[in-house]
Amino acid sequence: MTTGRREFLTTVSQAIGASVLLGASASEAFAQQPAPTVGEVIDLILKTIPGAPFPKTVDTLKSGNASQKVTGIITTMFATVEVIRKAIATNANFIIAHEPTFYNHLDETAWLEQDDVYKYKRDLLEKHSIAVWRFHDYIHSHVPDGVRMGVMTALGYEKYYDEKNPRVFTVPFLKLKDIVANAKQKLGIPTVRVIGDMDQSCQRILLLPGASGGRSHIQGIESEKPDLLIIGELSEWETAEYVRDARLKGDKLALIVLGHAVSEEPGLEWMVSFLQPKVPGIKVTHIPSGNPFLFA
Amino acid sequence: MTTGRREFLTTVSQAIGASVLLGASASEAFAQQPAPTVGEVIDLILKTIPGAPFPKTVDTLKSGNASQKVTGIITTMFATVEVIRKAIATNANFIIAHEPTFYNHLDETAWLEQDDVYKYKRDLLEKHSIAVWRFHDYIHSHVPDGVRMGVMTALGYEKYYDEKNPRVFTVPFLKLKDIVANAKQKLGIPTVRVIGDMDQSCQRILLLPGASGGRSHIQGIESEKPDLLIIGELSEWETAEYVRDARLKGDKLALIVLGHAVSEEPGLEWMVSFLQPKVPGIKVTHIPSGNPFLFA
Repeated sequence: MTTGRREFLTTVSQAIGASVLLGASASEAFAQQPAPTVGEVIDLILKTIPGAPFPKTVDTLKSGNASQKVTGIITTMFATVEVIRKAIATNANFIIAHEPTFYNHLDETAWLEQDDVYKYKRDLLEKHSIAVWRFHDYIHSHVPDGVRMGVMTALGYEKYYDEKNPRVFTVPFLKLKDIVANAKQKLGIPTVRVIGDMDQSCQRILLLPGASGGRSHIQGIESEKPDLLIIGELSEWETAEYVRDARLKGDKLALIVLGHAVSEEPGLEWMVSFLQPKVPGIKVTHIPSGNPFLFA
Repeated sequence: MTTGRREFLTTVSQAIGASVLLGASASEAFAQQPAPTVGEVIDLILKTIPGAPFPKTVDTLKSGNASQKVTGIITTMFATVEVIRKAIATNANFIIAHEPTFYNHLDETAWLEQDDVYKYKRDLLEKHSIAVWRFHDYIHSHVPDGVRMGVMTALGYEKYYDEKNPRVFTVPFLKLKDIVANAKQKLGIPTVRVIGDMDQSCQRILLLPGASGGRSHIQGIESEKPDLLIIGELSEWETAEYVRDARLKGDKLALIVLGHAVSEEPGLEWMVSFLQPKVPGIKVTHIPSGNPFLFA
């Protein structure tokens, strides 16, 4: 009967895609399933991504190995030392992080071999057999983009979502200062950087969380003609100067820079609802890595 | 006699390197000299830079041409539309800017050919025959680095300058919050981003204005062991996360992010004292392009 019940529940959970909603007895039953390996979890994820696996991607294992049995999964923006410690404390040995572990986009480490901070973090991961996998290119390639879904939901913009043009949200006319206040409150951000007139009205918002780069921002402005661009991070000699010049030209264009980490963190929270049904025997927990900055 | 007086004054001004201190009659005399061309001014600058001209550099003309006669020189961080308008208003047709004109490091413009902001700015420059030259790689290669000299002086750190290790300033023990307050007040910055404990004491400051990149910042920390890194700009997945992890490891390391434009602007003010004596007949004026951001 136990086996039958587990099979039934597994089928149901797959069918409704929401095993997290099932009761404790179901969780206990799932826990009796053999734990998947890190590689098996990654494969389950990749099955849902169009075109995966990609021949070239930064989404690789940064520590640990594919064959280790998963005891628990943490999703986060950055696998900071703090997030790693929390993973260890909760006996979760698999961290899925959106951003690099070792302070550069490709997670190159040869240049850091003598660096004490790198060595401390690497040793902490090795001592506790923590696997870290980056989920960056793939989550953005999911349909819909998991980060955008998370951020949109966190901002309360679901009702303005247009799947034909998912980057643009046409909201009722709102003052820039009210959009700023909403973003700060909903995303838990202490301060944002803004270019624009706080009293100007905005209706057409181009939302590009993260740091997609100056050309992405500027070409997005060219094609979408927003009156507000909301991004996570920029290079100051690119997008900021473009927006400044556009305003001097007379364009009604504003910019909000949320901060990279806080602009995408809800995507890693979204990931729990995406991943948990695929691994019913494993607890998937989102730990926000948080905003690194004080504003002074 | 006029010629003789001009020659004498030119010699004197070169000897004391401070023609700006001379009286109006001297200026009038200099103004009678044939105006140098843009190319001649650039050549005068390059004569002072070790190893110049560089085979590969971003320091090229972004508009105008080398043969045009200079009517006045503006130095600035960014040749914004506002700075261009001020140059036009003061009849100065040569802007020397530290950073790109067209929103990308190499000032590539093919991708912007249909962009209305680019076209507006390019047309404004062309209509008024304004030359823009970038002075980035060369000013940093000047001995001493002109940007560092300007920023150091603006911050009031001259007395801590060590020409053997010009990036590091060993100050009397100061609280992080006091260093922040000084930088904001001296550089005219409304808000800075900080990682650290505002009450911690700092003595060894690694000062890297601008955006020299994560590896530059991290390798600087490795080699100099500062307790405070002050920079202009960073990529948030690089230096910020490194400093965050270093602190979690237990290192007493803090970070101040000044903002790119405001962190280097004093270098372009320094440039007036550097360039004016070389072009006594031409007025050299610093126009700050200013901080583009509000903090909200």
